[in-house]
Amino acid sequence: MKDEMTVALSASRKIFAVLDALHRTRRPMTLSAIARAAGLPLSTVHRIAGDLAEWGGLERDARGRYQMGLHMWELGSLAPRSTGLVDAALPFLEDLYEATHGNVRLGVREGTEVIFVSHLSGHGSVPLRTRAAQRLPMPTTGVGLALLAHAPNDVLEKVLTQELPRFTPFTVPDSGALRRLLADARRNGYAICDRQMTSDAVSVAAPIRTMTGEVVAAVSVAVQGSGPEAVRRHVPAVLMAARGISRNIARTPEPTWTTSPRLTQSA
Amino acid sequence: MKDEMTVALSASRKIFAVLDALHRTRRPMTLSAIARAAGLPLSTVHRIAGDLAEWGGLERDARGRYQMGLHMWELGSLAPRSTGLVDAALPFLEDLYEATHGNVRLGVREGTEVIFVSHLSGHGSVPLRTRAAQRLPMPTTGVGLALLAHAPNDVLEKVLTQELPRFTPFTVPDSGALRRLLADARRNGYAICDRQMTSDAVSVAAPIRTMTGEVVAAVSVAVQGSGPEAVRRHVPAVLMAARGISRNIARTPEPTWTTSPRLTQSA
Repeated sequence: MKDEMTVALSASRKIFAVLDALHRTRRPMTLSAIARAAGLPLSTVHRIAGDLAEWGGLERDARGRYQMGLHMWELGSLAPRSTGLVDAALPFLEDLYEATHGNVRLGVREGTEVIFVSHLSGHGSVPLRTRAAQRLPMPTTGVGLALLAHAPNDVLEKVLTQELPRFTPFTVPDSGALRRLLADARRNGYAICDRQMTSDAVSVAAPIRTMTGEVVAAVSVAVQGSGPEAVRRHVPAVLMAARGISRNIARTPEPTWTTSPRLTQSA
Repeated sequence: MKDEMTVALSASRKIFAVLDALHRTRRPMTLSAIARAAGLPLSTVHRIAGDLAEWGGLERDARGRYQMGLHMWELGSLAPRSTGLVDAALPFLEDLYEATHGNVRLGVREGTEVIFVSHLSGHGSVPLRTRAAQRLPMPTTGVGLALLAHAPNDVLEKVLTQELPRFTPFTVPDSGALRRLLADARRNGYAICDRQMTSDAVSVAAPIRTMTGEVVAAVSVAVQGSGPEAVRRHVPAVLMAARGISRNIARTPEPTWTTSPRLTQSA
């Protein structure tokens, strides 16, 4: 019994290792590249990739390399914090885009990072470093600041003791400056992120709450500019969007918008 | 060796069965509900769900039930035919929404079905039966008709010999009528779906092609109405969007927009 469980447990981990190798690399991979990245024997990867491809979790490209399959996306779309949240938010994201024509983004917290679950942008929006489904550090994005300002203490302390990533000369330099930004965000009800990630983009973000007041997501709009004044005029629109989305979430018959208790980051 | 492979293979299938049970049910489930739906022993499901939750592929809701986790969505977002395609299409979907204020959708073919990978709609758009990441029969949706009109022969023949689903009195009644609709779609360069799925919605869809001319997706706009005339005025906008998206896809440095060779449907 013990032996069977050990073998089976190990099989789950091997499948996860194959999928996470493709996740880290973010591009189609040969079996041997996956084997190297996952630290698994080629024969094992061959078998697992075959199983996954037959199931639809992986697909092969024209050159025979493996890439994520549409069935994985179908499954992932069922995560309440992805499609469910996006569906509740979409009309308000649309309104926010039409009102500002900035880059509109919706994000949630996973451990100590922010994940963007939706973004809307038009031809004329400012180019940003972010894309959908990307993980980023919380201190350097508007959505991340809004989420971190309302995160549990253990999450906040963990972020404050980590080395802060540095993307531009405007990236928040130390934990003291970050604490002040978060205090501002809590007092104002919105967070401003001034060129911390991209040297010509400024964003404003506001938290989205469940009926019980728990912050489960945040919405932001980013525009080209330098200094907080560049987005000040969009604050009311962002607050409107955040309140509208919060109301829509509260209407959901079965609230399953749990925030992640996981503090571990996936590799 | 043989024995180890058999056990390991079986472990993949068990994990897939747990995930597919949640996919079919589309809501949070207890371990015993998953065990029943997947046809697996409770102890096995307990162990697999634990592994998946630790990894981030599943999450637990406030009542302890299991639901899809955000990490599954992160992985699925890497499928070229989901986020990659949506990223290339988004500015044009935006334009199409702003020009028509209808329900804008982007879909791909998986086996003999259509999967919507993106949809944009505002407060005033017509309510539809579809949601993102949903699989639907190809003959009863505009996007599906546009895809089916350019599908390989084996796919077309398989759809034509299947029993056609019936949603409204306007649903295409037989394979002869369907063949005529598809011939129209090929001749016109767009497909019109008149109340086939929802009794007051009409849509027009156009195919999206790679540089080599292969149809890999389709875009549609749906509006409230009865009869093809309701969407005729949106034909140019849909054709414009389809051409714009096709052009953007052609620019992708590594074209991995493979259509699915899988004819099997996931359970």
